[in-house]
Amino acid sequence: MSEHLVPLDRRSWVDYEADCEFPIQNLPYGIFSTARTPEPRVGVPIGDRLLDLSVLFDAGFLPGPDVFHRSSLNSLMSRGRPYWTELRGRIAELLDASCPRLRDDDILASAAFVPLAEARLHLPVEIGAFVDFYSSEQHASNVGRMFRDPNNPLLPNWKHLPVGYNGRASSVVVSGTPIRRPNGQTVKAAEGPPSFGPSRQLDFELEMGFYTGRANPLGEPLAIADAGDFVFGFSLVNDWSARDVQRWEYAPLGPFLAKTFATTVSPWVVPVDALSYFRTAGPTQDPLPLPYLRTPTPWHFDLHLGVDLEVSGARYPTSRTNSRHLYWSCAQQLAHQGVNGTNVQVGDLYASGTISGDAPDSYGSLLELAWRGERPVSVGDSGETRVFLIDGDEVVMTGYGQGDGFRIGFGECRGRVTPAPGIER
Amino acid sequence: MSEHLVPLDRRSWVDYEADCEFPIQNLPYGIFSTARTPEPRVGVPIGDRLLDLSVLFDAGFLPGPDVFHRSSLNSLMSRGRPYWTELRGRIAELLDASCPRLRDDDILASAAFVPLAEARLHLPVEIGAFVDFYSSEQHASNVGRMFRDPNNPLLPNWKHLPVGYNGRASSVVVSGTPIRRPNGQTVKAAEGPPSFGPSRQLDFELEMGFYTGRANPLGEPLAIADAGDFVFGFSLVNDWSARDVQRWEYAPLGPFLAKTFATTVSPWVVPVDALSYFRTAGPTQDPLPLPYLRTPTPWHFDLHLGVDLEVSGARYPTSRTNSRHLYWSCAQQLAHQGVNGTNVQVGDLYASGTISGDAPDSYGSLLELAWRGERPVSVGDSGETRVFLIDGDEVVMTGYGQGDGFRIGFGECRGRVTPAPGIER
Repeated sequence: MSEHLVPLDRRSWVDYEADCEFPIQNLPYGIFSTARTPEPRVGVPIGDRLLDLSVLFDAGFLPGPDVFHRSSLNSLMSRGRPYWTELRGRIAELLDASCPRLRDDDILASAAFVPLAEARLHLPVEIGAFVDFYSSEQHASNVGRMFRDPNNPLLPNWKHLPVGYNGRASSVVVSGTPIRRPNGQTVKAAEGPPSFGPSRQLDFELEMGFYTGRANPLGEPLAIADAGDFVFGFSLVNDWSARDVQRWEYAPLGPFLAKTFATTVSPWVVPVDALSYFRTAGPTQDPLPLPYLRTPTPWHFDLHLGVDLEVSGARYPTSRTNSRHLYWSCAQQLAHQGVNGTNVQVGDLYASGTISGDAPDSYGSLLELAWRGERPVSVGDSGETRVFLIDGDEVVMTGYGQGDGFRIGFGECRGRVTPAPGIER
Repeated sequence: MSEHLVPLDRRSWVDYEADCEFPIQNLPYGIFSTARTPEPRVGVPIGDRLLDLSVLFDAGFLPGPDVFHRSSLNSLMSRGRPYWTELRGRIAELLDASCPRLRDDDILASAAFVPLAEARLHLPVEIGAFVDFYSSEQHASNVGRMFRDPNNPLLPNWKHLPVGYNGRASSVVVSGTPIRRPNGQTVKAAEGPPSFGPSRQLDFELEMGFYTGRANPLGEPLAIADAGDFVFGFSLVNDWSARDVQRWEYAPLGPFLAKTFATTVSPWVVPVDALSYFRTAGPTQDPLPLPYLRTPTPWHFDLHLGVDLEVSGARYPTSRTNSRHLYWSCAQQLAHQGVNGTNVQVGDLYASGTISGDAPDSYGSLLELAWRGERPVSVGDSGETRVFLIDGDEVVMTGYGQGDGFRIGFGECRGRVTPAPGIER
């Protein structure tokens, strides 16, 4: 279990409001470039500024080797937990109210800080494997109620293992990337025949994901007690889904084209250390999981999550939930996916599956919010309703942990739906 | 459609028998190293020799840039079809009976050739995504008969689209890599509870796979008519499967740990040009697929495939089949997986799914050969039988196209089962 590296009462000489997403207790990592310096490099936001780690490294303030003049965080992540701890400590020290080194060096500070609003943010990690779980009991139950058996919505395996499947890593994109509505096969009747065209049931899925920063050799299962050495940090994930495509294609081998066209991640990777303030016991697991899935320490987090819809330039709250609703923790997900000897890589992304709470306004997808189309969702006071997404809709996911006097945020996970490519019929 | 680049009647000055897998009409690519020169590099086998392309490049015989001093074929593949054609032509010319340049240059030849038996063969491609299809009608029907409905074994979607799912790329290994039996959750009764331990139903799956050598931008579907620019070449694939793990885990999101522990590929990537001799019309597809799945040219191949079991040092034929049994072609698989805008990458691996023929000895898995355990398979005249694989068994897959006086082979796809890691119960 990692320590609370940055003390709760630490203050920075950088000014920001109490509800700022990027206080000194956060210090997430991202990859950015600017109009003036187009080479991607590693940055850390604080307040409304972005600290350019490549400049700090060149000035001799950060531990080597150079993992900062890089277009992904993979090199940094691959250095391992002791390095993660050392680096985070060094950055916090430089930003601490008591430290004059960066604060009072105008030349260095002007080179090292970029206004956050001027930075172009890139996909932070070169993703090796993308695995998606299905770890929210409420979400799995909602889907089971709708499509299977209202009285017995969970399949027998669900409470014994974190159900998951392999996703498509190549189409994971950073927040802000337009999402083109996919074409695909859909059916009116369960037995077909299919027709081809743009999906009519495009949906979002609110998820969290974690990136791994350590590899294990193929054939050597990792132990759940070592999860802290593997889990580098977390992002928000929108697992865009074409429900109508999925319904026709998914038996018997699972979702494929309904999911592979795009997945959006938030630009910052929030270190586990920054989330340690919000660690919490998960739900009681009954039946007790098999020994390889039992965690000695809590790996659930109390994080507020939200989905807003931006329609015609106005933004409307659509869902509010919390990551502590997850039944299976990230440590359990990781231990399960590796128990057969599968090799985890530096830069794998493991997502939680849609996170839904108990209340109808805490569901993490339109499928659930509009209950399979039966209860169209009002888009604020716009007069519009949604059953699924229409072209032009922008989905904005946010997340934060609320500390005593500070807030640790993830930055937005945003994507706007654009029309499907034209097709020859 | 690519041309038959190397004429059928071409002969090489390198000696080999008529049933040699690596005649001048083949010229597959692989990555190798030797005890003397441990750096991995690109090689092409001919007869019982291996031609070191890094040496030929340094000597000025191959078109640049340097894609040969490399630990994967990705750079070579990324150069695109005109380069593939040029390079293949240049190598064939140097090995042609009429060409003295390499033949008569003893110093160059002694540097450029390595005895094939002395080469260590590596995974040929850095695999971005691994997608596995389910494209053999006989296999899908066999599985459907066993586990679903004997009278209606195919699901309604099966003849309308090439069913597929995302696999795990990180655990794809080259022929010869030992395969550790996975631990996992299995059940006696359908509703559980599960117990944990080594899989008792470890199986092979005989497949073919192709690697892509071209990328398309995310959101821009590729057209089936362009498949020839994307498909670089083919290998054999053993999609190892833990049937008991799969049965418990797979609903509703498909196979996961039952497959992710390991996938074996043969070491050579046989270019599409070398397989053009064996192009054949596939089965009549009824119903006619949607337009995006209709190929203007045949993309099925008449290739003999086999599985042998090596038990206690002796080798026994276990299955003989042919890749023309596939219902969906590789061009259809590629067009389908990309129709929603998913970006193909240089170095993706797309596998066919288990290839089974009509006759019971042409099935591509032990599950089918032993019909779910009901008909134990005799291991030659050894007196032993198999329902699933036991520790120590070695599975050897082979494949070739038979030309008039020459044979184009894939090399072995081999893996030996080793015991599961010890576990705390």
